[in-house]
Amino acid sequence: MSKDLTAPRTLSGFQELLPVPQRQMDRIAQILRQTYELYGFTALDGPAIEDSRVLLAKGGGETEKQIYRFQHGHDDLALRFDLTVPLAKYVALHWHELTFPFRRYQIGKVWRGERAQRGRFREFYQADIDVIGDGSLSILNEAEIPAVIYKTFTSLGLERFQIRINDRRILNGFYGMLGLSDRAPDILRTVDKIDKIGPEKVGQILREDLSVEAGAAGEILDLLSHRGDEVLPALEAYRGRDPLFDQGLDGLRTVLGSLSAFGVPAGRVVPDLSIARGLDYYTGTVYETVLLDHPEIGSVCSGGRYDDLAGHYTDRKLPGVGISIGLTRLFYILQDQGMLDPGLIDAPADVLIVPMTEDLSGAVSFATLLRDQGVRAQIHAEKKKPKQKIAYADKLGIPYVAFFGEDEAASGTVTCKDLSTGEQTTLDPAATAYRIRAGLSARTAGHRPILDRGA
Amino acid sequence: MSKDLTAPRTLSGFQELLPVPQRQMDRIAQILRQTYELYGFTALDGPAIEDSRVLLAKGGGETEKQIYRFQHGHDDLALRFDLTVPLAKYVALHWHELTFPFRRYQIGKVWRGERAQRGRFREFYQADIDVIGDGSLSILNEAEIPAVIYKTFTSLGLERFQIRINDRRILNGFYGMLGLSDRAPDILRTVDKIDKIGPEKVGQILREDLSVEAGAAGEILDLLSHRGDEVLPALEAYRGRDPLFDQGLDGLRTVLGSLSAFGVPAGRVVPDLSIARGLDYYTGTVYETVLLDHPEIGSVCSGGRYDDLAGHYTDRKLPGVGISIGLTRLFYILQDQGMLDPGLIDAPADVLIVPMTEDLSGAVSFATLLRDQGVRAQIHAEKKKPKQKIAYADKLGIPYVAFFGEDEAASGTVTCKDLSTGEQTTLDPAATAYRIRAGLSARTAGHRPILDRGA
Repeated sequence: MSKDLTAPRTLSGFQELLPVPQRQMDRIAQILRQTYELYGFTALDGPAIEDSRVLLAKGGGETEKQIYRFQHGHDDLALRFDLTVPLAKYVALHWHELTFPFRRYQIGKVWRGERAQRGRFREFYQADIDVIGDGSLSILNEAEIPAVIYKTFTSLGLERFQIRINDRRILNGFYGMLGLSDRAPDILRTVDKIDKIGPEKVGQILREDLSVEAGAAGEILDLLSHRGDEVLPALEAYRGRDPLFDQGLDGLRTVLGSLSAFGVPAGRVVPDLSIARGLDYYTGTVYETVLLDHPEIGSVCSGGRYDDLAGHYTDRKLPGVGISIGLTRLFYILQDQGMLDPGLIDAPADVLIVPMTEDLSGAVSFATLLRDQGVRAQIHAEKKKPKQKIAYADKLGIPYVAFFGEDEAASGTVTCKDLSTGEQTTLDPAATAYRIRAGLSARTAGHRPILDRGA
Repeated sequence: MSKDLTAPRTLSGFQELLPVPQRQMDRIAQILRQTYELYGFTALDGPAIEDSRVLLAKGGGETEKQIYRFQHGHDDLALRFDLTVPLAKYVALHWHELTFPFRRYQIGKVWRGERAQRGRFREFYQADIDVIGDGSLSILNEAEIPAVIYKTFTSLGLERFQIRINDRRILNGFYGMLGLSDRAPDILRTVDKIDKIGPEKVGQILREDLSVEAGAAGEILDLLSHRGDEVLPALEAYRGRDPLFDQGLDGLRTVLGSLSAFGVPAGRVVPDLSIARGLDYYTGTVYETVLLDHPEIGSVCSGGRYDDLAGHYTDRKLPGVGISIGLTRLFYILQDQGMLDPGLIDAPADVLIVPMTEDLSGAVSFATLLRDQGVRAQIHAEKKKPKQKIAYADKLGIPYVAFFGEDEAASGTVTCKDLSTGEQTTLDPAATAYRIRAGLSARTAGHRPILDRGA
């Protein structure tokens, strides 16, 4: 009786987790949801597949090559490659049904058919928030974003991270002052690399490749050399020479000045004039977030202010500000760095119930009692020895095992073993349930969500 | 300055909800997750896209035509069309890393390119649970499934539903007794329609189309005529004539006999000998769930016991039992029938904070205070009149509006209005937060999750 078997496999670049890591992943997503909701963001979901003409209205550039695009019947379809384009479509399509400012979060899969490699995924979760205004949007929304990032990462148990901000108007205004507006995109791209290649190399590229005069190049490098508290005074020296620059400086002051009221401790958010991000798209504050012990990873949460979300779908001006976390990537970073929550109860159940008599009704009733009290219970009724069932609980990390044998049946009790301490009690079912609930509360109480092993 | 605009649209058959229905949808999914976890099921996720050869190893039949299948580079890919085939692949692939019995739940999107029509989706959520044994699986797992269904639907606030069960061995054994094994699949298909076309028409098809002798056809119709408490005695009359039949009868007795200990009230689960489901796949207990006031909808939660989950991927015998809820479809049914939760707080925030002075720090600090206490707060800092901001809160259903004007700044207070009662207080921020939290608790307390408007 030989059969034709197909070898089971999962495509590379596609995440498929075992149960324990899956629980860690779900926990991170849950923390993001809860945090975003504290700031008044409402959840959206929406289709994974869109009409290709709609999804690619903007023109894809580099991204377009990576898109999963296919024909089905007469339809030219594509899988979404980010959550921003579908948001733009959604807001343009449902504009008359939405109330502005519109604050939405979305945690969902996106697909990009890149060459799969370590840390690169073809299918991955993004977790985005955006505030969309109708015609205009207050700077306060830009000031609030660092607070959301701070709360999110802190809630994940991370401590050693830094939020870096800049204002695109400062950069554009500054290069305008220097008569370099025509070369601004190239300069921004170069300056963005300063942490990687160093100021000398940046200066060389500016002078030699971009024909920036030595004086101007020096001025750029000088401005970039200021960090932390020095940045605002250094910028003030240029005030009054370019209106856009002045607006950007005011914006940066407002954002930095609001941090304390937003509950963000000093030093968490620093101005960094080398940050540019999304050359065409962003028009105000931009954000990056780095894990201080892992600068090599780059930014794990980025975004910024934009003036025109849905310009390809509507004439209506819809400015906004948003950030995106690459959730699948963040999960793998935390996993790799041993920063997942070691205290998370990752067992599929709190109690394993082991019937040892023909009559299962005592075991089943106890399971029902526990579940009605919100305790996760599993009955192990397979033909295995009690010892094997204890090993099963042990392997899965189930903290309690409850036995129903002849003695327990005769006396109306249940014998319950705490696998971590070895402690064993024989009590009536209600008392046993009480003891288990008390034990579970104690376990959960002292538990830090995610261990940050940073120095 | 005319632009080339692309008309935004969403493909038909793809769900895209506005914020308020999205919250209802998310709430239903959350209740399913919590309920499944009480029974010791662990969450899985997994890829939306699989290698077509893997996904279609079983051969697709009718389903195959509906699959979104496409080429990307050298890869022949397909979007999953259910959660069972990916589970089979997962269990076969990760067998050595899993612990059996393996209990998993999965709530995820699947895709079928059917002709879109009302109530039919091309992209929809399924919510599945399965228990997989390694080699064998106790009948108790089959007995537990009705309890999971009962708890799930009750937790959703539904009252008027009924779980109908049968055992495939009873049917196969019975047709064996009558010498009709060769025609069993056709008979099962015919008998399955008895509620729609009536017993007379079924009898006619049996005799005329399937050449069943009048005596045997009469016996079939007679057995099927028994409902509720009559079913077991009627089946006992046939005991001892076919071993498979007897096993099925014992199975049905065990499942029905365990309901009380599982906390399922009498009458919720009824034996129904006309239920067959999945002709080749199921080998023991089968389940259907109907909404009593909407029989036209058919089963909203179905499944059964199977002997060979992953036979296309492995020689290992992996029996299991599982059920599936078509979540997107269930959502639309509940929405259509007015059975969504009318008490759900569907606003994106609990408090709208309205600054009325240049200095926003009081408003921001109050938002921070609320968020630190778990209250969802939004600051409305746009250039609008207070009246317009109240209208904004009203439109979104935000229950409280907090004002920060000159007077409040001078006295260090906040004026807070309860939009449902019109009551207004001016208190210090801490007292205001306390009042809001008390009000929110009172709102949530009496609130039934989903209103069942059935008789």
